Amino acid sequence: MTEHDDDRPRQPGRTVARSDPGRAMAFSDAVIAIVITVLVLDLRPPDTEPGGLLAGLLDEWPTYLAYAASYVYLAVIWLNHKAAFTRIREMDIGLQWANLGILATLALVPWPTAVIANTARTGNLADERVAVALYAIIGALLCLSWLVFFSYLARHPDLTHDHVDDDYFAHERPRALIGVLLYLAAGAAGVFIHPLVASVIFLVLPVFYGITSHGYDQGPSFLRRGAGSAKSS
Amino acid sequence: MTEHDDDRPRQPGRTVARSDPGRAMAFSDAVIAIVITVLVLDLRPPDTEPGGLLAGLLDEWPTYLAYAASYVYLAVIWLNHKAAFTRIREMDIGLQWANLGILATLALVPWPTAVIANTARTGNLADERVAVALYAIIGALLCLSWLVFFSYLARHPDLTHDHVDDDYFAHERPRALIGVLLYLAAGAAGVFIHPLVASVIFLVLPVFYGITSHGYDQGPSFLRRGAGSAKSS
Amino acid sequence: MTEHDDDRPRQPGRTVARSDPGRAMAFSDAVIAIVITVLVLDLRPPDTEPGGLLAGLLDEWPTYLAYAASYVYLAVIWLNHKAAFTRIREMDIGLQWANLGILATLALVPWPTAVIANTARTGNLADERVAVALYAIIGALLCLSWLVFFSYLARHPDLTHDHVDDDYFAHERPRALIGVLLYLAAGAAGVFIHPLVASVIFLVLPVFYGITSHGYDQGPSFLRRGAGSAKSS
Amino acid sequence: MTEHDDDRPRQPGRTVARSDPGRAMAFSDAVIAIVITVLVLDLRPPDTEPGGLLAGLLDEWPTYLAYAASYVYLAVIWLNHKAAFTRIREMDIGLQWANLGILATLALVPWPTAVIANTARTGNLADERVAVALYAIIGALLCLSWLVFFSYLARHPDLTHDHVDDDYFAHERPRALIGVLLYLAAGAAGVFIHPLVASVIFLVLPVFYGITSHGYDQGPSFLRRGAGSAKSS
Repeated sequence: MTEHDDDRPRQPGRTVARSDPGRAMAFSDAVIAIVITVLVLDLRPPDTEPGGLLAGLLDEWPTYLAYAASYVYLAVIWLNHKAAFTRIREMDIGLQWANLGILATLALVPWPTAVIANTARTGNLADERVAVALYAIIGALLCLSWLVFFSYLARHPDLTHDHVDDDYFAHERPRALIGVLLYLAAGAAGVFIHPLVASVIFLVLPVFYGITSHGYDQGPSFLRRGAGSAKSS
Repeated sequence: MTEHDDDRPRQPGRTVARSDPGRAMAFSDAVIAIVITVLVLDLRPPDTEPGGLLAGLLDEWPTYLAYAASYVYLAVIWLNHKAAFTRIREMDIGLQWANLGILATLALVPWPTAVIANTARTGNLADERVAVALYAIIGALLCLSWLVFFSYLARHPDLTHDHVDDDYFAHERPRALIGVLLYLAAGAAGVFIHPLVASVIFLVLPVFYGITSHGYDQGPSFLRRGAGSAKSS
Repeated sequence: MTEHDDDRPRQPGRTVARSDPGRAMAFSDAVIAIVITVLVLDLRPPDTEPGGLLAGLLDEWPTYLAYAASYVYLAVIWLNHKAAFTRIREMDIGLQWANLGILATLALVPWPTAVIANTARTGNLADERVAVALYAIIGALLCLSWLVFFSYLARHPDLTHDHVDDDYFAHERPRALIGVLLYLAAGAAGVFIHPLVASVIFLVLPVFYGITSHGYDQGPSFLRRGAGSAKSS
Repeated sequence: MTEHDDDRPRQPGRTVARSDPGRAMAFSDAVIAIVITVLVLDLRPPDTEPGGLLAGLLDEWPTYLAYAASYVYLAVIWLNHKAAFTRIREMDIGLQWANLGILATLALVPWPTAVIANTARTGNLADERVAVALYAIIGALLCLSWLVFFSYLARHPDLTHDHVDDDYFAHERPRALIGVLLYLAAGAAGVFIHPLVASVIFLVLPVFYGITSHGYDQGPSFLRRGAGSAKSS
């Protein structure tokens, strides 16, 4: 029950167990697809008296907002996952577990989403504070799992493709760390100021993250890290 | 955390971040497979008194009809998705989000389906009007997401395969737009005339769409857009 | 929004819309994987008083049996699906819909399974008759969807690989037809004799089907249809 | 409806039905991805009075622990499954059923996990004993399904890649057998000593299994089975 380089017989001298990222990518895709879909499928017909359907549907607006925010968040994560894996040449057992850590925290996202949607319906302020704090903790954990993933890749440049800058993943770490801090700050703001403040930050953060993350390479050329030099090396 | 052309080193001069559609296709397949299956799996044993199972099962007929209609609708969407992606050579971040928009609205379909099935059971006319209006809005949103997708591809012909007509996706736009209008019209008919009218249109629309969509190229040759000329170009 | 031979530019003269079975296979795998897994995941902790867990778990034995039978049934279907698709070279829109028909009826299986498990718990004989009749109808529908699939392939030998006997799928039809009749007969036996008779047949049928289906080619050589001659043609 | 070597026409003389492991691997990945994700998605907002959310969330700690343990267990299984399949060249019908056996027992894991989490909440000692016994039985069954899988491969060395030691899978059997015994021992300790003892073993076992399993090949070289000699053969 081990994982070694049987599928790459061209390197018989290697002793460390490694494998092609193909199956890990397909597995991750399946997990993210399930989480993002189940999140949307969690929308159920409201439990209303006959004649009360319209009011029941309109009352659910915080739910719609919460699910939209989480959908965008998970979509951004999938795009980042896809982008990261185009740079990975092979995986060792440490990277497998780092990836499984991302998948575990990512699969948690629908849970605080449902908790926030629930408390928004009942409208108890103490519960709303707890709910945004929970969302903030899961959001921070998710960024933390990316920080671990990037750090592992930064310390193991031999796992990436030859044309990837050796310090590419080292440069990704601050972005993940900032995510950890921003989610914790949003949670603190939700607890000590007002849950609505946290909710707005939860809505804005993934959008901002999505734009900047891809703007990084697609923005004005002087902002782009030397992709050309990486390729020529 | 960006997406660029690492996986296609043969085009070192490109600066815009692009990727192979393979993983987006697999991800979409997984999402559509989950939605279409969960839709069917939503059928549950009726909650009846001992001895009342037969009556309970027969009473559920609007549910069976609603699920059959949504299944055909989602199957038509999957076939169209598959057909569209055979024409896509590579994806940029805009096309990724256009595709994620289709997946998000598509995953919403089981929700109004369950709402319609619920109201059909209770038989409150006001609720039935709201339910068909909701279904119409989601149906229109789904067609709208396809309109955005086709428009994006029409404006970016460099993302499609060489043998695809430059105006292929421009020609697909009216079909999506007509879908938006037909779903809204069906919803209006359901609200102002009778919910049953809307339900019949919801049942017929996907079937009609499915037939005409494929008849487009498979019908008599004088109806087919010049596939030959596209290929010779 | 059509499906034609863009992905196989080597046959520019073809006018009928066809596609590679790859994505249909992946989609079918995903649907069957979801159905078979959700079936098992439907097992929930019994709703018992404190201290009553053991009795609660033991009382569920008809559920375990029902799920085991459906799991084996779905597993046999997946193996048959896989075996059929190794013979399919390309798919047209008719075959796509025949396959979507199999997937739709297959996804229904957990529903009568749960209905049977429910009635077995309450022990009302009238309900048990209805439940086995429902299971028989879904089982027959599933065999019917295979009959349609095989008939379509029998009438379109150009969709199969060159080394497949032209009458291979014609020879598969009787097996599907027998399945339709056996499920209906089991249902009738359940209604007119006793539900237990039907339940036993439901348990035995997939096992018998699974064994004979693969024995067809793996049994003594004089039972095997001329695979060699098919290959030499 | 059979499975033979159509997809590998290069061996026309073979009479036994065999197939490429590709589709079985994709199917297994999908099943494991669904099980591991649904396990996490099973976390729901606690059903609390307004203002009681924090206490409700904190009360759920046994649930979090139970899900964490099962997640790690399923992740270890996926890694082992992936590692085993890199050694498999082709599958016959017996190996297909052995794999379907692993998938069936693996999909059962969320069930005793939820049962344990439930009883931990109610705190009835008799129920807790039953719950850990159930978990132990499912855990033992899962190891047993691996034992069957390894034994089948040990008896059919022709199904593995040429560079795999003929006794590789024979050597894997004791590890699976030890798993059966350890889970049964943990269950017995839970019933006759205290459920907490079993719970701790359930938490530790997968971690221990995960480490030793991969340490097997990655540990000091004198512990590694002669991978080099296997390759030279």
